[in-house]
Amino acid sequence: MSKYLRPEFRDLDSYVPGEQPTGRSFIKLNTNESPFPPSPKATEAAAQAASGLNLYCDPDNRELTKTMADYFGVPAECVLMTNGSDEILNFAFITFCHSSCPAVFADITYGFYKVFANVNGVPYETIPLRSDMTLDYRDYLGINKTIFIANPNAPTGLAISTGEVEEILKSNPDNAVIIDEAYVDFGGESCVPLTQKYDNLLVTQTFSKSRSMAGARLGMGIGSKKLIADLNTVKFSINPYNVNSMTGAAGIAAIKDDEYTRRNCAVITENREYTTEQLRKLGFELNNSSTNFVFAKHPKISGEDVYLRLREKGILVRHFTPDNIKDYNRISIGTREQMDALISVLREITEEIK
Amino acid sequence: MSKYLRPEFRDLDSYVPGEQPTGRSFIKLNTNESPFPPSPKATEAAAQAASGLNLYCDPDNRELTKTMADYFGVPAECVLMTNGSDEILNFAFITFCHSSCPAVFADITYGFYKVFANVNGVPYETIPLRSDMTLDYRDYLGINKTIFIANPNAPTGLAISTGEVEEILKSNPDNAVIIDEAYVDFGGESCVPLTQKYDNLLVTQTFSKSRSMAGARLGMGIGSKKLIADLNTVKFSINPYNVNSMTGAAGIAAIKDDEYTRRNCAVITENREYTTEQLRKLGFELNNSSTNFVFAKHPKISGEDVYLRLREKGILVRHFTPDNIKDYNRISIGTREQMDALISVLREITEEIK
Repeated sequence: MSKYLRPEFRDLDSYVPGEQPTGRSFIKLNTNESPFPPSPKATEAAAQAASGLNLYCDPDNRELTKTMADYFGVPAECVLMTNGSDEILNFAFITFCHSSCPAVFADITYGFYKVFANVNGVPYETIPLRSDMTLDYRDYLGINKTIFIANPNAPTGLAISTGEVEEILKSNPDNAVIIDEAYVDFGGESCVPLTQKYDNLLVTQTFSKSRSMAGARLGMGIGSKKLIADLNTVKFSINPYNVNSMTGAAGIAAIKDDEYTRRNCAVITENREYTTEQLRKLGFELNNSSTNFVFAKHPKISGEDVYLRLREKGILVRHFTPDNIKDYNRISIGTREQMDALISVLREITEEIK
Repeated sequence: MSKYLRPEFRDLDSYVPGEQPTGRSFIKLNTNESPFPPSPKATEAAAQAASGLNLYCDPDNRELTKTMADYFGVPAECVLMTNGSDEILNFAFITFCHSSCPAVFADITYGFYKVFANVNGVPYETIPLRSDMTLDYRDYLGINKTIFIANPNAPTGLAISTGEVEEILKSNPDNAVIIDEAYVDFGGESCVPLTQKYDNLLVTQTFSKSRSMAGARLGMGIGSKKLIADLNTVKFSINPYNVNSMTGAAGIAAIKDDEYTRRNCAVITENREYTTEQLRKLGFELNNSSTNFVFAKHPKISGEDVYLRLREKGILVRHFTPDNIKDYNRISIGTREQMDALISVLREITEEIK
């Protein structure tokens, strides 16, 4: 730490991303990436854009935004494309939270929310999930704070209904409500249509999971025109050229090849059901996930042990250290072959303790 | 504006990027882009990376950082790669400025500095340039504020010496000093070697200009290990995956093809000298630029008129509206053919007023 550091940051805890190993080759089930490459059309479009990199990208992302808006059936003024969905989430913390309007989110959810709050000097509160890790929407009714809900939630994999979201929206008309739909394509129900009905709703989505573009950094916010205009003011005050030319081109091609995305999501969903069943047979406890990962614990083996034993065998999963989730591992859903490799190692581990 | 907007942002003035036209084809001399495509090796590397986009990029940008550090002859811990140099500048405002440590910069300089200060709630002061638009380094001695100096400066094109920077560094040991070298490859003298001698120096650079990668979004900061560690804490609290896989791969290839960059810079420098001479013959007043643009005014034609007449003829240059620079246009240096087209239109305009 240098003596020049802003004093408030002396204890800043950054976000810790999942390991991206180099050297040794792992079966990588730790960061909820897709096991499938991006659409060949997206790859081709990105490659073509690479030869024009001497020119700046379009700061308004006009073609990309229009394509995405058409896909959702909303006006282009209701969509803001961003550098990953982390960027739209950070913008939402900056734009809609402040000293007299704290952020609020579940105690078990995307770990970045509290980091965004801290780095932006925004006060925040957390609301505990129920003991079965479901979220009770009634905890969020009329609370007069800026609400962030990952739906489906991570790392639990569990979703609330759009009807429940609607109750939250109605009862908090003076506050922005952010629904983070990073995993919605694997079984959740999207709130995007509600953005045309409720002025206070911002839905965020990403190309990192279902569209196989984690390495390209593309996300978005969908909301009322006024919310998006506010977020745009902040974007143009921080990162005007926020979607590089290659990612923008790949994004347009990926949306247009939606059939490819749907097919991959179907395979992943099927593999998730299969994995859930197999893990339960081995004695693991899991909820019914609506995402591309499962969150599993074993009554007789610690979460850390499972993580370390898998790593030893060349399989990476994600283990978090906070007390309330340390018994679990979050396991991304890959190909059937990858899941069989996982199951096989877990079988060995569970057999040892019999 | 929505009612949810953070109250401090009601009057936020965003940065206004130069026009990126679609439809009509212009000779584009308005955003200091390179007229040359990126190195074919960079294009090829980006295209290859596009097929692996399903995996996240390396949040530590290890290979890219190492390559850049080797290029500069500094340890890898002294380099932070960012999403354009705007990102490292924003991080510097967040990390090294606060209520009791304001930012300070010239009154005529990169227009984004005051936007970064405002969006981050950082107080700032400006120091006037001399009437000939040169910067007097003595104005920055012992001022106990976080100093931002674009060197060479934009839009003036003028540089101060590394010796003068060193005096500023020595006299402000308790404050970070940020030297923004976006244009250094066109004739400035880099302060990167000084980062190994002064703990308070952060140098920022970009791939947008000399390396023809504006559309890829790649920049960096070079500083002492402690400064870079602080900036890394902030990066991991805002944008952990800040350099996408394609841009990272292109960046590595571009650094390794430095000969290509040097050749392009030599052509641009030569075209700048030629343009300066021709414009002076037409009665324009210009300083001796050390960048890839010139900043020119005509004693008898308003800056806005020049801008509009050029635009009418299909040539885009950058005109700024603040009073102290409204007589000027900033004209990016392109190919010889582009500059001849510019000179030819300016000749017509100046002949009309004879």
